[in-house]
Parts: sequence; C-alpha cells; structure tokens
Amino acid sequence: MLRRCGGLLETEGVKCTGSVIDGTMNIHDQILEMSRRAASAARVLRALDATGKNRILEAMAEGIASSGEKIAAANARDVAAAKADGLGPAMLDRLLLDPQRIEAMAQGMREVARLREPIGEEMSVTRRPNGLVIRKVRVPLGVLAVIYESRPNVTADAAGLCFKASNAVILRGGSEALASNTAILDAMLAAGASAGLPDDAIQLVPTTDRAAVHALLQMDQYLDLVIPRGGESLIRAVTQHSKVPVLKHYKGVCHVYVDRAADLDMAMSIALNAKCQRPGVCNAMETLLVHEAVADEFLPRVGEALVAKGVEIRGDAHTCRLIPQAGPATESDWSEEYLDLILAVRVVGDLAAAIAHIERYGTHHSDVIVTADDDGAQRFTHEVDSATVYVNASSRFTDGYEFGMGAEIGISTGKLHARGPCGLEELTTYKYIIQGTGQIRQ
Amino acid sequence: MLRRCGGLLETEGVKCTGSVIDGTMNIHDQILEMSRRAASAARVLRALDATGKNRILEAMAEGIASSGEKIAAANARDVAAAKADGLGPAMLDRLLLDPQRIEAMAQGMREVARLREPIGEEMSVTRRPNGLVIRKVRVPLGVLAVIYESRPNVTADAAGLCFKASNAVILRGGSEALASNTAILDAMLAAGASAGLPDDAIQLVPTTDRAAVHALLQMDQYLDLVIPRGGESLIRAVTQHSKVPVLKHYKGVCHVYVDRAADLDMAMSIALNAKCQRPGVCNAMETLLVHEAVADEFLPRVGEALVAKGVEIRGDAHTCRLIPQAGPATESDWSEEYLDLILAVRVVGDLAAAIAHIERYGTHHSDVIVTADDDGAQRFTHEVDSATVYVNASSRFTDGYEFGMGAEIGISTGKLHARGPCGLEELTTYKYIIQGTGQIRQ
Repeated sequence: MLRRCGGLLETEGVKCTGSVIDGTMNIHDQILEMSRRAASAARVLRALDATGKNRILEAMAEGIASSGEKIAAANARDVAAAKADGLGPAMLDRLLLDPQRIEAMAQGMREVARLREPIGEEMSVTRRPNGLVIRKVRVPLGVLAVIYESRPNVTADAAGLCFKASNAVILRGGSEALASNTAILDAMLAAGASAGLPDDAIQLVPTTDRAAVHALLQMDQYLDLVIPRGGESLIRAVTQHSKVPVLKHYKGVCHVYVDRAADLDMAMSIALNAKCQRPGVCNAMETLLVHEAVADEFLPRVGEALVAKGVEIRGDAHTCRLIPQAGPATESDWSEEYLDLILAVRVVGDLAAAIAHIERYGTHHSDVIVTADDDGAQRFTHEVDSATVYVNASSRFTDGYEFGMGAEIGISTGKLHARGPCGLEELTTYKYIIQGTGQIRQ
Repeated sequence: MLRRCGGLLETEGVKCTGSVIDGTMNIHDQILEMSRRAASAARVLRALDATGKNRILEAMAEGIASSGEKIAAANARDVAAAKADGLGPAMLDRLLLDPQRIEAMAQGMREVARLREPIGEEMSVTRRPNGLVIRKVRVPLGVLAVIYESRPNVTADAAGLCFKASNAVILRGGSEALASNTAILDAMLAAGASAGLPDDAIQLVPTTDRAAVHALLQMDQYLDLVIPRGGESLIRAVTQHSKVPVLKHYKGVCHVYVDRAADLDMAMSIALNAKCQRPGVCNAMETLLVHEAVADEFLPRVGEALVAKGVEIRGDAHTCRLIPQAGPATESDWSEEYLDLILAVRVVGDLAAAIAHIERYGTHHSDVIVTADDDGAQRFTHEVDSATVYVNASSRFTDGYEFGMGAEIGISTGKLHARGPCGLEELTTYKYIIQGTGQIRQ
C-alpha cells in the first residue's frame, strides 16, 4: 500500500496526513501516478541552478548523517528479516549498513555536490551564413528510473547523481532492503525539502510487489531512461520487459592478451592485478591469452603466481602442458564471467588470433594488450570493438572514478548514447537553441 | 528468392554464378545470413581510411551516373507496376526517377565524399595522476539497418552516409521500388568493388516479403541501430517490433508562439514561412499560439495572409472571433500533424500558457518563439523540452543541411544517443583507448 505526505513516501502504519495517492489504487495506477509526478518534477528541476542544487545536495548529506540511528534501526529490521529468510552471508553483508557505510553515503553526496555542473554546457556553437546562431546545449534527460538489488547505499548514490544532473528519479531497490531504503529516502527528503528540493524529484517505489517493476518499465510516456544495477538476471529481465531505453552492461568477460613483444614482468603484474585484486567485479580479467612465442617462458611463471593466490586455471591443451595445476577448459569457459578466482587461459598463434578470440567470446567491456610493439598495440585498439581498450595497464581501471568522472552510475557495454563508465554527463542529453533575427527558409 | 554473386545481390532470373546464399533458405535464415555478413563487413570497414573510403564513394557516384539508363529502365518497370496497382499520383511521383534525380543521387554521393571524416576524432584526452592517458575516440557504430518507403533515392543516400561513417548497412526499401533499388545497388556495388568496397558492406533485402523486416528487427546480436524513414505508421511498426535500438521521430507538431513583445512583421513572415513554404514536412508549423495582448492586431492580419495562401484555419473561440474564415478547433486539433495547408490557432494568456500548451500537445521536435524580450526568450528556450528551440526564426531550419552538418540521415525526437537533425556524427559511437606503462589498480 502506498501513502504519501509532504513529499515523503511512507509505508503503511506510519502516521501520515494528507495522503495524495489513494490507498485503494492498484499497482499500475500507483506507478502511473508516480511517473506523472516525476515528469512534473522534471520540469521544475530544469529551472534549478547549480548553487541551489548543491545546497540541496549538502542538506541531503547532512540529513543522512544526522539520521544515522534511524537508518541503522531500519536496516537492523531488514537484516533480521533477511536472516530469518535464510539469506547467505555475502547477501547479508551487502544489505548491512554500519555507521561507516552510512557516513560514506553522506560523504558521497557531499562529493557529488562538489562535482562540475553538467547542465548548461555549450557543447558547440555554429554561426550559419544566414546569420542563425545554433547552440548545442547540455540539458537533463528528464525522468530516470534506477532498479537495483540489495545494497541500500545505492538509494543515496543514485539519487544524488540523478539530482545533480537535474533529473527526476524513481528508485526501486531490493525487496529485502525496503525499510533501509525508506529510511534513507526519508532522511534525504526531509533535509532536502528544507533546502528547496522540489516535490517528487526523488521517489522510491514503496512496495515489494514485483508487478511494480513491470508497470514502471511500461511508462515510456514519462520515463526517459532505466538503469538496472545488479546481476545479469536482473539486467536481462529489465531489458526484456522495458519499453523505456535501458543503460546497461550484461557482463564483463575481460581479456588480457600478452603479446610476443610484451615486457613479461609487466604482463605478470597486470595479469595478477586484473584477476586477483578484486575478482568479483565486471572489470576483472576472466580470460588470459598468451602469444605462443612467449608461452613457454610466461605461462609457467604466471601459472605459479596465480595458483599461489588461489586461482583455479582452466587452460587449453598447450596451457595444460605448461601449467601442471591447470585443468582443461571447455568451450563454455571462453564465454564465462566467473566473478571468482577462476581463470581461462589460452595460447594463440598471433595477434590476429587474439583479436578474433576477443571478438568472438568477449562482451565488449574492457580488454588489454601487453606489448612493447606500437603497431601491434594500435591494431589491437583499433580492431577490438570494446568500450575500453588498454595498452599496458590493468583492466581494473574501467571505473568512473578512475576515469576522473568523479562519479559512476554504471558501465555501458551498449554503443548507443553512452559507452564505458557513465558519470554525470551520461545522465544528460542536449538540445539545439537557435537564435535568429527573423530568418525564414527560402 | 535470394541469390548472391560477386558482392551483388540479384533477383531471380539474373545470370549469376557462385551463389553463396542457398535459394531454399527461409526468410529468417536469409536475413540472419545477411546480418552475419554485415557484422563481418563492419570489422573490415573499421580498417579503411578516409582516402580509401572517399575513393570508393566517388566510384559509386560514377557507377550511378553511368548506369542512368539501366536504373531508369528498372524504375520504369516499378512505375508501370505501381500504376497498374492503382498507386496515387503523389506516391508515383515519389517513386519516379528521372535523369535529374539519378544525377542528384550521384551528386549527393560525391558531396558525402567531401564531408569531413567523422571516424578517429579525439573527443577528449585525460591524463590521470597515475600516468594513464585516456583518449575518447570516435568510432563507427557497426551495422545499421535503414527501412524506408517509396523513394528509391534513399538507397544511394543512406548507403553513402552509412559507408562514410564506416558502418555496414542493410537496406530495406519499399516493395514497389525493388527493381529501382536493386538497379541502384548493382550500380553502386559494381563500381565500388572495383575501388575496394568490402564485400557485404552495403546489402539490400532482395525480397518484398514483410517477414524479412520482422526478421531484421530481431537481429540485435548483429545490428547496432535501425533507422526507419517514412510515415508515422512505418516508424511505429518498426519501434514496436524492434529488439534493435531505433533512431526515430514519430511526428512534428511544431509551434510558433507570437509573444506580446514580438515584432509583428517578423512574426507574420515567420508564421507564413513555417506553415506554407513546404507544408508536408515534419518541421512545418502545425499550431500558431498568439499572446492575447497582440491577438487583436496580429490575428486578423496573419489570418488574411494565410487564407490568401489557401490555408484552412482551425481556431479557438477567440481566434474565430478575430479571423472570420476560421472554423472551430476541437481538442484533437492541438495534437494533429496536418502535413497540409491546415493550421490550428490558439490565443494564450501569457508565455507560461504557451509553454504549457507546447509541453502538453507538442512532439518535442521544433518550436519557435517570436519576441524582442530576452528574458522571455530565455525562459522559452529553457522550459520547452524540444530537440530544437528557436528564437525569431522559422521552424523550417530543422534540417541537417541547414545546420551545416552537410548531410542528414533523419531527425531524432528521442533524447538518447542523438537529438534533432542527425548527420554523420550521429552514426558513430566512441571507445576509450587507454595507454599505460604497466599501471595496476591499488
């Protein structure tokens, strides 16, 4: 059941006057009403300037910081219920909000306030022979929906970024985190409203009913973009059902190719970092490709080091001869996103074979060549059709913060609109503003 | 039935050796095979440089020019069949290729050859504190499909633009123009191949079976973008069925708002131009909004001039009092794209009411304010959420050529990827190319 008062969405039982949304509404109508309100808020948001937005962001950060106990109490209810439901330790850890994590949310919002203003940037100016001045100006997208899983901190992170880019946002978090998400939202909205946050600029779907997500994905009349954040199954489900464009990456099957002209010490360091530094993320290496000319020297060394770090190696026949601990890879290993300490390894005949492997099995996320040969590096970066292509660096740098964007809402492996790490600019579009002096078309 | 030889797609009965695609394939498998070939071609196209591409474009232009008689003969067969089928005069005119139109296709391709190279542009360079150099580089999208209606010249125009941006393209023209389109394709491919055009870079769906379009729209594994060019029903059908992203505009309900601070002579000139200069196109005005403070003076004058040009006026009550020839507008008139000498006219109380009308009934295509008030102009351009917003100029300038793009593949009223007139840049994406010296993530 959905009730709303004073810009706050509250769950049933919370004292609330002036309910705007009727408790008898069905889910579709509730989501429709939320979407309409978001579209209205988007029009108000277009009029906010950078100073006003940053004041609101700072206020929301303080709101989160000063509501730490309330948020922690709500989170404790979520965690207790999740434990009773038998949620595993990894999921429980994702769900947990301790004081450090709550302060990190507040700090993240303060940092978003300090980022460069994305709206209003003049992307180009053209003066035509007839005197028309055509300016291409960066503007908000309008209304975004962010659909995410168990981490409640996404509630604050996504709200901050969408708002900084002057977009209205509808958030839909994991059902196991609803109390936490609601507490975070309440803290942000109460503090934000006092600093001028427009009504309905940030809304949270206040039900765990899955029909709400389906209804949201049909609101293409009001929503401009949907961003799913979570595992592949969530992203596929959103993409399959959405009438609204989706900014997404399915998975990262990232490759490191060690060329015949590679500095093998550098290759060792990059391979170990790309696989082991944080194996559970999308920019970690999943497949190592090694030129046959350096396989005899490189594979036993890197194999020993990887095994020492606990990595299970699944290799082709050549690899298995050179790394005694390697097991045989099957065809499906080349497409696998392990997100774990497992690595597929293959020996290739030349650079062309490495590129062909990546184009066939990769996911166009992040791929690396280690080589001292500039021509080979250029060919690799030219022919590998991935969002980010590296020469002599770890794939782990594919990240909005590491790219200097100051923020990241996600990583796109699609080619339309935005590709690679997405920060504030990727939450915007542009319009053409044309100044004339009475010009008409001949 | 589909047969293929030497890079040419030919219809049954044409002498052909070395058929690659089996004549017994069903439509889905034929389209799948074409899509796979296009994806292979896209990889080859990435390696072409500007000089090579322009030489191929010049050769294709000559191929069209020197095949004028063959193209005209094929077109005569299409026209005869269309007449026998009872096609109306407007459709027949669209289908017709006379020597001037054939030469215009060749000339258009020569002009595309001379446009600035879109691929390889360095869009930004960031040097990070750790020494990584992150370059954002413009690259081709990959494989495009263009689905269009009766005008056969789109075959050459779309092929030229897609190729110039190093994309492979699958063309699907109107069924009544298949012989013409095939003749144009044959002329382009034969001449292009001799200059180095890669196999399968430009393909035409060689069947009038509608199942082919549906199959094409399911090829999201191979196709990066679909561009429908035609009427609203075509665009809606493509959007509804496509798993591939669609670059589109449904329709242009464009407004001219004459503010109380307008120069009324300028407003007259702009209103007449926006409505009458070419009423059948998407950037023509469909609704005129007039501030009530100038309605008494402006509406009788503009009404007389519009009626003298044959325009039927459908007005609100206020308008009907001031323009004797006006008939009453109904609610549906405010959303109508007439594409004809018909105009809806409404008197509004102020700028805010004009903006509210445009946001409610408009299609976010092209909207105009005529005013000498800079603050009002700024508010209008800020709050009207359209792809192109004009101050004191006709809406008719929304066009890739008028914007100085040198070409136009279409106009987007979507906000993702591209908005407004789309030229070569809008047929590209970017990738990040990162140069390191062995950096690993800490």
